[in-house]
Amino acid sequence: MTNNSQNNDQVKMTKRVAIIGAGSSGLTCIKCCLDEDLEPVCFERSNGIGGLWNFQENVTDGRASIYKSLIINTSKEMMCFSDFPIPDDYPNYMHNSRILEYFHLYAKHFNLLKYVRFKTMVCSIRKRDDFSSTGQWDVVTRDAEDNLESTIFDAIMVCIGHHVNACLPLDSFPGIEKFTGQYMHSKDYKGPIIFEGKKVVVIGIGNSGGDLAVEISRHAKQVFLSTRRGAWVLNRVASKGLPGDMLFNSRINTFIPKSVLNWIGERSVNSRFNHANYGLQPSHRIFSQHPTINDDLPNRIIAGAVLVKSNVKRFTETAAVFEDGTMEDIDAVIFATGYNISFPFLDESVVNVNKNHVSLYKYVFPPQLEQPTLAIIGLVQPLGAIMPISELQARWFTRVFKGLAKLPSVNTMTADIMEKKNKMAERYVNTQRHTIQVDYIPYMDELAMQIGVKPNLKELFFTDPQLAFKVFFGPCSPYQFRLTGPGKWAKARETILTQWERTIKPTKTRAPAMNQQETSLPMLLKVMALLVAICALCLLL
Amino acid sequence: MTNNSQNNDQVKMTKRVAIIGAGSSGLTCIKCCLDEDLEPVCFERSNGIGGLWNFQENVTDGRASIYKSLIINTSKEMMCFSDFPIPDDYPNYMHNSRILEYFHLYAKHFNLLKYVRFKTMVCSIRKRDDFSSTGQWDVVTRDAEDNLESTIFDAIMVCIGHHVNACLPLDSFPGIEKFTGQYMHSKDYKGPIIFEGKKVVVIGIGNSGGDLAVEISRHAKQVFLSTRRGAWVLNRVASKGLPGDMLFNSRINTFIPKSVLNWIGERSVNSRFNHANYGLQPSHRIFSQHPTINDDLPNRIIAGAVLVKSNVKRFTETAAVFEDGTMEDIDAVIFATGYNISFPFLDESVVNVNKNHVSLYKYVFPPQLEQPTLAIIGLVQPLGAIMPISELQARWFTRVFKGLAKLPSVNTMTADIMEKKNKMAERYVNTQRHTIQVDYIPYMDELAMQIGVKPNLKELFFTDPQLAFKVFFGPCSPYQFRLTGPGKWAKARETILTQWERTIKPTKTRAPAMNQQETSLPMLLKVMALLVAICALCLLL
Repeated sequence: MTNNSQNNDQVKMTKRVAIIGAGSSGLTCIKCCLDEDLEPVCFERSNGIGGLWNFQENVTDGRASIYKSLIINTSKEMMCFSDFPIPDDYPNYMHNSRILEYFHLYAKHFNLLKYVRFKTMVCSIRKRDDFSSTGQWDVVTRDAEDNLESTIFDAIMVCIGHHVNACLPLDSFPGIEKFTGQYMHSKDYKGPIIFEGKKVVVIGIGNSGGDLAVEISRHAKQVFLSTRRGAWVLNRVASKGLPGDMLFNSRINTFIPKSVLNWIGERSVNSRFNHANYGLQPSHRIFSQHPTINDDLPNRIIAGAVLVKSNVKRFTETAAVFEDGTMEDIDAVIFATGYNISFPFLDESVVNVNKNHVSLYKYVFPPQLEQPTLAIIGLVQPLGAIMPISELQARWFTRVFKGLAKLPSVNTMTADIMEKKNKMAERYVNTQRHTIQVDYIPYMDELAMQIGVKPNLKELFFTDPQLAFKVFFGPCSPYQFRLTGPGKWAKARETILTQWERTIKPTKTRAPAMNQQETSLPMLLKVMALLVAICALCLLL
Repeated sequence: MTNNSQNNDQVKMTKRVAIIGAGSSGLTCIKCCLDEDLEPVCFERSNGIGGLWNFQENVTDGRASIYKSLIINTSKEMMCFSDFPIPDDYPNYMHNSRILEYFHLYAKHFNLLKYVRFKTMVCSIRKRDDFSSTGQWDVVTRDAEDNLESTIFDAIMVCIGHHVNACLPLDSFPGIEKFTGQYMHSKDYKGPIIFEGKKVVVIGIGNSGGDLAVEISRHAKQVFLSTRRGAWVLNRVASKGLPGDMLFNSRINTFIPKSVLNWIGERSVNSRFNHANYGLQPSHRIFSQHPTINDDLPNRIIAGAVLVKSNVKRFTETAAVFEDGTMEDIDAVIFATGYNISFPFLDESVVNVNKNHVSLYKYVFPPQLEQPTLAIIGLVQPLGAIMPISELQARWFTRVFKGLAKLPSVNTMTADIMEKKNKMAERYVNTQRHTIQVDYIPYMDELAMQIGVKPNLKELFFTDPQLAFKVFFGPCSPYQFRLTGPGKWAKARETILTQWERTIKPTKTRAPAMNQQETSLPMLLKVMALLVAICALCLLL
């Protein structure tokens, strides 16, 4: 191990920030560091950027892994970084390869790649002895030639995501050790071909479980989708074919009481297909669970290709016995049972994980650190995209680190953490899946307020009503957090006003034939919407 | 050629009916002949029943051919034969292999197989010299050993369908002869694997075009779906997840004016996805074209996997040039351009086909024959299933042939044919695709009236209001034509009353969790529906 003398660099006063991982969070961290004149050094264990979006044919230990066909379930206007919209001809819901392309465009545009040390793994991150005064860290890394290196950093941004360590709860499935077929975790799934003609049970109805059941059902003899609680299933292609997240994640919806939102949501998904009749109806309300997004599942259920089943009680050598007493012969089992959060390079005294519970101030700062020089970025699960959240977290952290924003006292932070925990526990089904759940807009606003970039709607309605209208009634797209304050982006306004054009362009690839019958109604509706908007605002402001 | 002496059989007075083809139409023809004490002989060129539903890995000349993944787009309660419901655990929309299973169940239950001569091709069917008095036919067949045989039949039922002769309009696509990539007709398509990583253009947005585009898009680098007119796209999984045809094909809808139905239909499919924004909007109304049914197409369009394009103007060696002036490099072309109707074994004087126009009385009888001893069965294209139509046509033909029902004069028949042609020409886009279009319920009723099996709603409302309610407001399932008259089936009533149970059973494979919030509303709705029904009836009757 060489202990190099980068301490000397400190005299230059450029603070050095170690960023762990060059996935979507890591990339935006580099960019945010540069924006604040910090010097980022990003350690990436693989040889490419993109993190889990960098599809590999083979699964590697310690890296997230996706299947070949994966399409993101957040739309391009909602998942992009706030000052770099996705090209207008890119599809709304992108295949993983297109997402990686976008990250490359982002990295190229802001010249981020030169800050990434590829094939370099972070072994340990430890507080320096003088941490309480300097806030500095010793970071030990190992490169491709197995050389260890220890470097001093002024700050750390951990961007490893939460899809690395597969959770494989075999203990909950007696008999699995006797089962003679194949079993695997969804993380190890790459494609459906190996299940050709087989009978497969997929355990878990999260997004992976749903996607895999549907895809495998086109090749398998039969797919059984086993779920303990059931699920409400949302659509990418929502009302009128618009992206679901652009409709749902609108500021106006945050004023609707949760109980009403639940009622509307359940009616809406049941009008697509009755969840009771499709064997999926859960006992919890629609927004008490991280939603499963799947457009094709009802089509595969009604065709009998996917059969929904209750939880697996036990396995025999060749079959699964379900809790309703039924038994099905099977050839393979896929555990789509999620992931465990883990920071192997961090001491427990810095960040402690207990059954996926992590105590972080607004999901970013370990509250008890003497200096706010370490952040966990992207460790949240919203009903929305993580990328803009990571970006805003990074903007916040760099401001705090530079002393341009302040954290409250440890007690206040701890109280805030407890309050959030209790709120989430009240609302969500109690599972390891819901420990990092956040409400997209309220959480974004909370972060934005820390750095003064939350759009001021009241002011906006008087100075720029057109924009205010879009910001309040339209999708809460990331550009909203570049309208004002530090990091303000001159094109934010224009980008918000044109977001629907970029949404419609990639699907409107053939000119529609003339059709007159429905021209007058939309105009009327727009006028009415404007009136409603004005009334609503009078009440709200 | 052996001219065997089956003339002698005639003395037994059992009339012999030659049935050409043992597909879905042929099978029910055998059954209907037996019901009327006729002696059916069914000639089938392949070695199995099921016609196009009998999937084969290879395409054979003169046989219909389907792709491996094909799922039917009519639901099980609407596509079954009228006295043999599909088992309650079968899925609503069946994979072709399950449909074939059902046909085997049908054949076994009614003991039909022994009337089928497999591997026997019909070479020619000619009127006998004494046709005008006997109505008899000479049928020449060739068996697997190439032996020709000529047999006399009293009647002929032609059941070869209309998916045998691919229509490949290469003349309309200049440059195709220079194109260096692969091209094929959709009939020759078996599966998507050969298109892995390729750029493929699918021409035509009928049901084959839509299905193939979607399936290939999971393997290809890019699929372009080229359409001249666009299309309105309907769902199998309709409102609340119920089968679309069970909702649409209801008697109450036949009382709604076509213009209103068009308006409702277009609003409904646009609420799923805006057809203009998805590049699909046609200039014609929704019910002016045989509908394209596809649940997955919008999902693939929004993900950019399928790009909708205008008509192909011409091909270069490596690309397609579209009518909007755009050009795309492509590796393969699939012509999903439909089929030509043809009866190679019949003389033109018996049935004349001109640009897919066939002049048949109610799509069954060649009007000019001196004796009504030949029927074309299943040569219709409904917005609904063909099987129950073929069955009713077969019931009608056998009754006419036996003299139990009468045909009108040649003039009346010809006038009826012309009237139908004009009506269809008014309503439908003028293409070869719409020459055999029928409205499901009116056409079924028309056939049913010929043999006295149309349900008498007026009477029913007084004698059995519960049943009348289901018959009028519920799906017009085939069992309705077994409630009364010749061929009445004792279980028809019970089968109608339980049709929704059989619909819901195969998807409700996991008990739903308790959910109280929506219990009272449905009850209220039922009461209201009953009131509406009573009012409607008072007006109608």
